[in-house]
Order: sequence, then structure tokens, then C-alpha cells
Amino acid sequence: MATPLSFEIRATDGEARMGRLVTPHGEVATPAFMPVGTRAAVKAMAPDELWSMGYRLVLANAYHLAVRPGADLVRDMGGIAHFMGFDGAVLTDSGGFQAMSLAKINSIDEDGIRFRSHVDGALLVLTPESAVEIQEKLGADLMMSLDECTRFPIEHPQAKASLELTARWAERCLVARKSTTQALFGIVQGSVYPDLRRMSAAQITALPFDGYATGGLSVGEPKEVMLDMAALGASLLPQDKPRYLMGVGTPQDLLAAVAMGYDMFDCVLPTRNARNGGAFTSEGRISIKRAVYMRDPRPLDPRCDCRCCTMFSRAYLRHLYMSGEILAARALTEHNLYFYGRLMREAQAAIASRTYKTFANYVIDAIADGEAALNGSKTDVV
Amino acid sequence: MATPLSFEIRATDGEARMGRLVTPHGEVATPAFMPVGTRAAVKAMAPDELWSMGYRLVLANAYHLAVRPGADLVRDMGGIAHFMGFDGAVLTDSGGFQAMSLAKINSIDEDGIRFRSHVDGALLVLTPESAVEIQEKLGADLMMSLDECTRFPIEHPQAKASLELTARWAERCLVARKSTTQALFGIVQGSVYPDLRRMSAAQITALPFDGYATGGLSVGEPKEVMLDMAALGASLLPQDKPRYLMGVGTPQDLLAAVAMGYDMFDCVLPTRNARNGGAFTSEGRISIKRAVYMRDPRPLDPRCDCRCCTMFSRAYLRHLYMSGEILAARALTEHNLYFYGRLMREAQAAIASRTYKTFANYVIDAIADGEAALNGSKTDVV
Repeated sequence: MATPLSFEIRATDGEARMGRLVTPHGEVATPAFMPVGTRAAVKAMAPDELWSMGYRLVLANAYHLAVRPGADLVRDMGGIAHFMGFDGAVLTDSGGFQAMSLAKINSIDEDGIRFRSHVDGALLVLTPESAVEIQEKLGADLMMSLDECTRFPIEHPQAKASLELTARWAERCLVARKSTTQALFGIVQGSVYPDLRRMSAAQITALPFDGYATGGLSVGEPKEVMLDMAALGASLLPQDKPRYLMGVGTPQDLLAAVAMGYDMFDCVLPTRNARNGGAFTSEGRISIKRAVYMRDPRPLDPRCDCRCCTMFSRAYLRHLYMSGEILAARALTEHNLYFYGRLMREAQAAIASRTYKTFANYVIDAIADGEAALNGSKTDVV
Repeated sequence: MATPLSFEIRATDGEARMGRLVTPHGEVATPAFMPVGTRAAVKAMAPDELWSMGYRLVLANAYHLAVRPGADLVRDMGGIAHFMGFDGAVLTDSGGFQAMSLAKINSIDEDGIRFRSHVDGALLVLTPESAVEIQEKLGADLMMSLDECTRFPIEHPQAKASLELTARWAERCLVARKSTTQALFGIVQGSVYPDLRRMSAAQITALPFDGYATGGLSVGEPKEVMLDMAALGASLLPQDKPRYLMGVGTPQDLLAAVAMGYDMFDCVLPTRNARNGGAFTSEGRISIKRAVYMRDPRPLDPRCDCRCCTMFSRAYLRHLYMSGEILAARALTEHNLYFYGRLMREAQAAIASRTYKTFANYVIDAIADGEAALNGSKTDVV
């Protein structure tokens, strides 16, 4: 029972694809980066700001929302997009990643994942069936099947056993799904073992999901291994369905992954780094904490026209950060998300004009040059 | 050497006045509430949002900015309004209030106030001369003379000695002032003693300040005493200069103070309460923490058209607050400041149409009725 999720590829350039996804809450141009809004809020941002920056799809986390405020409440308040005041679509993560990252408070068996609520300690059982039920209640446009996200490193036999569990859970998720409007994605695992990635992809893509994700990467493995596995993963997914690379990554990672043929991404980097004073710019990453910015009248990124770069100097942003002002988190988050959003729009245009490789190399070189210059001039100590 | 600060009274209704203040950074309609932006940022707000809500004048604190990032830096970055990206005017508090509220780290003598920096422990001496110099460097449109803000309670002899020190400091501030474009206000003290309020007003209003403030209230005295002293204070200030009631207060306090003839106000209530989950509404104060709002689909204030009330339900705001999301502080702060700003605009219109008393009573009654109804229905425990 695949839902009629419409995904149209409008242009390709090499393996890179430009297209659109039509959800119950509107269209999403791809390749698309999804800001992470774990608890039905992208940290420090307002939903109209996300919309203004061009975001039409954000990610929220089913596990966190099931714990608080509860899936029934979100359903009763009109579903997650309405609840959070966002005019676009929402994808919910199933909780598999939380099973790994909050591993001290859970156990995993054939049935599912047992959590202790991080809020009140209550026992929460996430089975394939309950994960789908929760996401249906939340009203997610795009739902993720429950998977076991393997940690790194993991031995081959354990990784194999894990992906087979993930495949059995994937089938149960499809059986459990009742909604005819909410899309459901399958997740490929296999850690860093090519044979296991192939095995998992064969199992998952044999199932009639609306889209497919490469999971279990960016969990501690070396960058080159991540990129190799991501590239292999993309090649194993169907051409005609949206491909989602989970939890990746830096601007350079996204550009590489778009070239591999991925359509969707999520990552906490632009939002989390912002709250720690980190900004992504066209000339590389900078930390606004550095004393070199104390009297710098320039915007964060001279080539950026976001609200933060239009209004604020680096000197002011540094002052805000050093003073612990909420506005520091807001301004840097807005800039970083704007940067990521613009990167995706430019990637779409470059694919349409079949200049993607030139575009991606230009951006990556400018970042590398900027960071080299920055590190060469790093004479201050904060 | 009074600066050519232009203050025009355009309408009166009883003692209430409606007018405009012309500053180097534009016009300000009065009566005006000034959001508190202690460290050159109104907590959780962006400057364009303040502008959109109609604010043309905000308050910052000279002491805090002198400590960090330093007055020279702010001057070099173009002055405080430019530094913080605000298109309007800025009034700076002198530091006298901090001398009281941070009393453990200072001493006061004839010369001035000795602080230990709350940031790095460095010794900072705030004299009338340095307070003016700092504010001139900061580029404040409206500067406050250094005063000793008496704590409550204080004995009559000590309050008398204090106001006499404040008067001597006031003269020194005027002598020290070099700027011909930045206005300087004098501050009347006298604690809760009518004879001392009269004595201080006589001393301060004899000096050629550009405006006059009633200080030393809202520091712990009973509400009725505050209102009595504020009313007496207003009657002692010149008609033709702006009158500023410092540190006051609730919406009802502001309405009462406008009726007394005050033109300017500042208070941390709308911003600080917001960060603690408190909202000012047309039906009284509410705390978004209360369980009764868990599934409440209504906006914070059904009669409000602010961005928060347009986008968010009480249920969502409660979820944000309980989850510790920055957006909770943002949304409630924006609502509260919008509420205060609208109250002032409506007060201006009511004075112009000579219906101020009716207007103020209507607003005050609606708040009282709303709070009575709310308290009558308070059956939940959070």
C-alpha cells in the first residue's frame, strides 16, 4: 500500500537529480535540506522565518514528541505542522536513532525498543507498529520506518543481525501503516560493510516504500568511509523514488551527496553549531567567539544577504555570544539555515543547467581557500 | 547647555499628554514604553522586530556596556543604535540603579560609585563625569545623569543625604557633558518621603536638563506608595519637558502614570516575565505553564493580532515552554512587547480624542475581570 506520494525528477546532471516532492502540505523542491526541529520547533527559529528562508519541509522526532507533549495531543491540535505553526510539510524520524544515541536507557529485542522517558522516566515501548501509529497521529507527511541504527564500530556479524532485524521491522511498519496520505520511507543499514549495505538495500528496496533512506552513517566512522558508504548506498536505491541520506552533514558533504543522487538531507550541524557560536560561510566555518572579531564591522559572510548578515556585524554578534544573549543563537542559526537553504537552491539550479560539478567545486574550493586563509591568520587566543 | 532636544506636546487630556520627542535617531511618539535592552539587545528579540512592533526608542545600560564590550568599542562601531542594528533611538541608564541592585560589589562616596565588574572583577569607577563620558561614547540619544537610587526602606536622614548627593552629581553631569546632540536627563529621588521628593525636585528641576525623571520607585515599596510618590513626582516636574517614570511597571501602572502626566517608561516586566512563561493579555496575566492550557487551541490573547498570537496556540506555547525551547521566550516576549506597545499607541489616541479616562478604565476593568475569572477557575496544579 504505497501512498500516492508524488516525486518528479525534473532534471539530472550525472547522478545528481533536481525535482520536486508533492506532500499533503505542499511541494518541496529537491535536493532539499531539512532543518531539525526535534521537539516540533527548530531551535531558536520561528516557523515563519523557516518559510521565508524557503524551507518547505522540516524534520521532527517522533520519540521526543511521543514523550512530550504526546502524539494524541499533537493529533488533537491538528497535526504537527499546524501545531507548530508551519505552513509546510514535516518528516518525522522514527526513534531508531534515539535508540542508539540514548542507549543507556533502552533495550532492543525482536519486538522493538524499550526506552525510559528522558522526561519522567516512564517506560516507552517503540515497536514498528507503535512507531508508525505515533507518526500517523503526529500527522507527519513523511514517516520513517523503525530501524536499528547501528553504532560505530560494530563487528560484521552483529551488523548483519541488526540489518536483518531492521528488515523484519520494515515489513511490520508497512503492515502497520493505516494512513493513505502519509508516506512511509524504508531505511537501509549495514554499517561500513559494503556487502551488508548491498544485502540491506536488496531487502529494503524489495518492499513498497514511498522513499528510501541510507541510515547508520555519520555515527563516528571516518569521513571517507561515510562518503564511500553513502555513494554505494545511493547506487543501490531505486531511481524513481526520493533518496534520503540521514544525518549528513557539512556543506561539502551535502554537495558530495547531491552528486551521488540523494534528494533529501537532515543534520543538526547548522542549528547546533550556531548555538555554540559557529557559522557556516561561503569562506568556510568561523567561530564568532574568536577575539579577532571583537571589532570586525563586517557581516558574518560578506556574500550573504540573510537577515543576520544584513543587520549585524561580527563585532555585535561576538558581543551577543559572549554576553549569552538569546539573539546570538537566533542570528547564527538563521544565518546557517539560510546558508544551507541557499546552497540547496543553487544546487537545484546548477543541476537544471547541467553545471552541477562546476558549481559544487567552486563552492568547495571557496570554503577550503577561506579556511586556509583563516587558519593561517589565527594569531589570537580567546 | 541644554541640547536642542525637541519635545512637543500635541494634545492633553487632564494631566495626560500626547506628544513626540525628536531625537538624532528619529521621532518617538509619547507616551512611550521603552523595552529594556540592557546589553544592547532586548532579550530574545531582534531589532527589526522591535521596529515592526512600533518601537522607536529602547533602553540600554551604560554600566553593563562599559563592562562589556566597552564604550570605546561601541563608539568605534558607530554608536549603540548602529551597533545593535536598531533604526531608532536609544536611552542609556547611567548605572545608578545597578549601584543599588549590585550593591554587594560596590561602594559609594562623594566621588562616585566603585564597582567590581560582574564579568571579570575589574574595578570600575562610575563618577558623574565618567557616566556622562561613557554614555557620550555609547552614542545614546538620551542620557541619564548619575544618581544614587535609594533602596527601600531607608530612613529619612539617609534619604535626604542621598538626594543631596544626587543633586551634586547632577550638576557635575551637566558640567561634564560635551555632546551638543545627546540629551541629558536629571533624576529626582527622595524615596517615599513627600518633603524629600519636593526638595529633590526643586534641586533637579532648577538645573537645565533636557528632560526629568522620577527615580527610586518600584524598588520594594507598597504599590499605593509607589503610585502616590509617582503622582507627586509628576506634579513637581516642568510641563514643557519630557517626564520619565523609571522602572514602572505593569500595564495598569502605566495607564495610571500616563494619567499623571508621564511621557516615558521602562520596565523589565514584559521581557523578564515572558522568559518565565508569563504573558500580559487584555484579560490579565496568564502563566503558560498551567496545565489548563495543555490542550488549549486559542492564542495567548484572543484580542491580539501579534505574530505570536497569529501563529501559535496556548497548547503549543506551553509545550515550547515545558520543553525549554528558545522559541517560548521569543514568542512570549514578542507578545508582551506588542501588548505594551499597543497599549501606548491606544493611550496616545485616547488622549488625542480626550477619552483617556474612559479608555484606561476600560482596559483596567477588562484585566481585572479576566484575572478574577481566571482565578475563579484555577482548579489545576502544574
